[in-house]
Amino acid sequence: MRIALVAPLAEAVPPKLYGGTERVVSWLAEELVRQGHKVTLFASGGSRTAANLVVCAPQSLRLAGIRDHLGSTLRMLREVRQRADDFDIIHFHVDLLPQALFHDLAHKCLTTLHGRLDQPDILPLYEAYPEMPLVSISNAQRLPMPANANWLATIPHGLPSQVCPFDPEGGEYLAFLGRISPEKRPDRAIEIAKRSGVPLKIAAKVDDADLTYFKAEIEPLLEHPLIEFLGEIDERQKCEFLGKARALLFPIDWPEPFGLVMIEAMSAGTPVIAWRKGSVAEVVTDRVSGVIVESIEAAVAATKESAMMSRAAVRAEFEMRFTVERMARAYLDAYRWLLARAPTITDFATSAKALTPKAREHVALRTAGVDSPANQASG
Amino acid sequence: MRIALVAPLAEAVPPKLYGGTERVVSWLAEELVRQGHKVTLFASGGSRTAANLVVCAPQSLRLAGIRDHLGSTLRMLREVRQRADDFDIIHFHVDLLPQALFHDLAHKCLTTLHGRLDQPDILPLYEAYPEMPLVSISNAQRLPMPANANWLATIPHGLPSQVCPFDPEGGEYLAFLGRISPEKRPDRAIEIAKRSGVPLKIAAKVDDADLTYFKAEIEPLLEHPLIEFLGEIDERQKCEFLGKARALLFPIDWPEPFGLVMIEAMSAGTPVIAWRKGSVAEVVTDRVSGVIVESIEAAVAATKESAMMSRAAVRAEFEMRFTVERMARAYLDAYRWLLARAPTITDFATSAKALTPKAREHVALRTAGVDSPANQASG
Repeated sequence: MRIALVAPLAEAVPPKLYGGTERVVSWLAEELVRQGHKVTLFASGGSRTAANLVVCAPQSLRLAGIRDHLGSTLRMLREVRQRADDFDIIHFHVDLLPQALFHDLAHKCLTTLHGRLDQPDILPLYEAYPEMPLVSISNAQRLPMPANANWLATIPHGLPSQVCPFDPEGGEYLAFLGRISPEKRPDRAIEIAKRSGVPLKIAAKVDDADLTYFKAEIEPLLEHPLIEFLGEIDERQKCEFLGKARALLFPIDWPEPFGLVMIEAMSAGTPVIAWRKGSVAEVVTDRVSGVIVESIEAAVAATKESAMMSRAAVRAEFEMRFTVERMARAYLDAYRWLLARAPTITDFATSAKALTPKAREHVALRTAGVDSPANQASG
Repeated sequence: MRIALVAPLAEAVPPKLYGGTERVVSWLAEELVRQGHKVTLFASGGSRTAANLVVCAPQSLRLAGIRDHLGSTLRMLREVRQRADDFDIIHFHVDLLPQALFHDLAHKCLTTLHGRLDQPDILPLYEAYPEMPLVSISNAQRLPMPANANWLATIPHGLPSQVCPFDPEGGEYLAFLGRISPEKRPDRAIEIAKRSGVPLKIAAKVDDADLTYFKAEIEPLLEHPLIEFLGEIDERQKCEFLGKARALLFPIDWPEPFGLVMIEAMSAGTPVIAWRKGSVAEVVTDRVSGVIVESIEAAVAATKESAMMSRAAVRAEFEMRFTVERMARAYLDAYRWLLARAPTITDFATSAKALTPKAREHVALRTAGVDSPANQASG
């Protein structure tokens, strides 16, 4: 299949440091190439891939110090548009804009939504451009959206098995990994450690936006023999950091759409102690790959429980549900299903007039050649 | 002519309080209607107009507390797109997005750029979508853009003559009006007042983003018998505030693309003492409608000079150059010129393929019927 993947320009693919979406796009691209597909990756300079790379910004916008990404993203989308005929499928990872710019090619496009959807300005957009098929990364992520949004599938993220290798031993500390911010609740992690008497290591970056919060709320809590603050760590250090932990603490207080760090810990065999919020109940299998809690007391109890959980069972759960092969397979299913149901595109278009002649021709061909149930229903 | 005006959704048209772009769009809309054109205004709820109003958001996004305007703006643009055949001209006032969404209708579209253009993410967009004809509001505003950008005209803003009525008397204080922010340099205004011994009245709002600056840099300067801080004032108070002043101080330190307050003062007959930055030299006629300066010393001298300037001459300058009639006439010229040169649209399109069949048909008709020099050159 000829597949275009359109990545955010904020970071390189894969990113040098932080950048969840760009990492997932990188893993997907490499796996699709490995499976023999012809993949074209639209991304910023500095990206490394076995796919055909189309550089759409000289360097990542973060490195270039460009904070508003609209102009560069629109430029990339024009590039994608001009080559649209070269692809069977165009798979976007850049949130809102493709809805408006590719709605007439919706029969061969899909968008994975990587962020939270409870923002007030997202709904009007999807109401106005309902054609584009959407992929959510958890079912919880869908909640703020209208029931009849054009969902194609929920496809949880997947991780190459070797990225965070299985560590059968683990270790004795609790791990907190990510960003210091109020919704990640590092304060809860610290309280859990102090109450349970288990050491906590915090590997986290502090963004400028969160500096006031860090100084006022978190720094004063760090002066304690059980608490160690490591600052930001790199990709390689991260997996060792997770693998050598007794458990990952994920005491979030926001509707997390996925939470990559949970499956990174699971890949290393480390169970996850997580608050029941957002995607958590879909990612953690309670009492198998971790413990889902709703209070500090339950989390403190879980620190003991997690020491007795089978790390091999955690890894097995990861291998069954969260590998990159599983993610790529799910996307390929979605691509194929989308192409097979192309005739029903007019269900989603506001009017047939919205289709370009090219799209109408495509629909006509599909209607003639494909005999899916969806097609029979519409014909 | 059937004209669509597409306004920002941030504020109603006209805005209740602050909102320069929405005020200009309102004045233009009412004047075009008055001249007998069929005007359709795309704007947020709460707008009041003699044009045909298409409400594109239930209320202004600021009132609704929506900070990211992308989704609502994209929804509005789809509405405009679906009605595109109903208009001879579509005139956008919403910055970047129309370039990407209407490039195939560029033969009948134009965009007035209301903001500064020295942002790093603007250039890639215009390079990628060069077709859309652009209007600048001063020549200075164009400087950061490539020389071959598709400029149609520079059209300075215009103001209805009765909005800020001529005050033949004026008064004795210096006026500072607008927003408290580092680039507006209220500190310079205060220093000019103190050095010249002329009282200064400051009518300005303090945005949340500028609160730290206000508290640290400006508030300590306000404790002085010559300085009076009035806070934010409304539209009606504003014109009296300007009319009763000896001069308006406009000591800016940024590339101001236009500066509406300068022509509001001129309308009231009040001369403007302004720093030579951005549009200033194009708006103020030195020694006629104000004094252009580049130092505190020159500004102090100008406070005396301005007391002796003819307020009637300032008003005459306003009437000649900055009325809404003059602005509307300039836009109508631009609309007509755009329609007459439609055949040369292919000069700007990246390829003929980028044009829709509708656009190609339009071009063909124009090529057949119009005999402009541009057309002969291209044919």
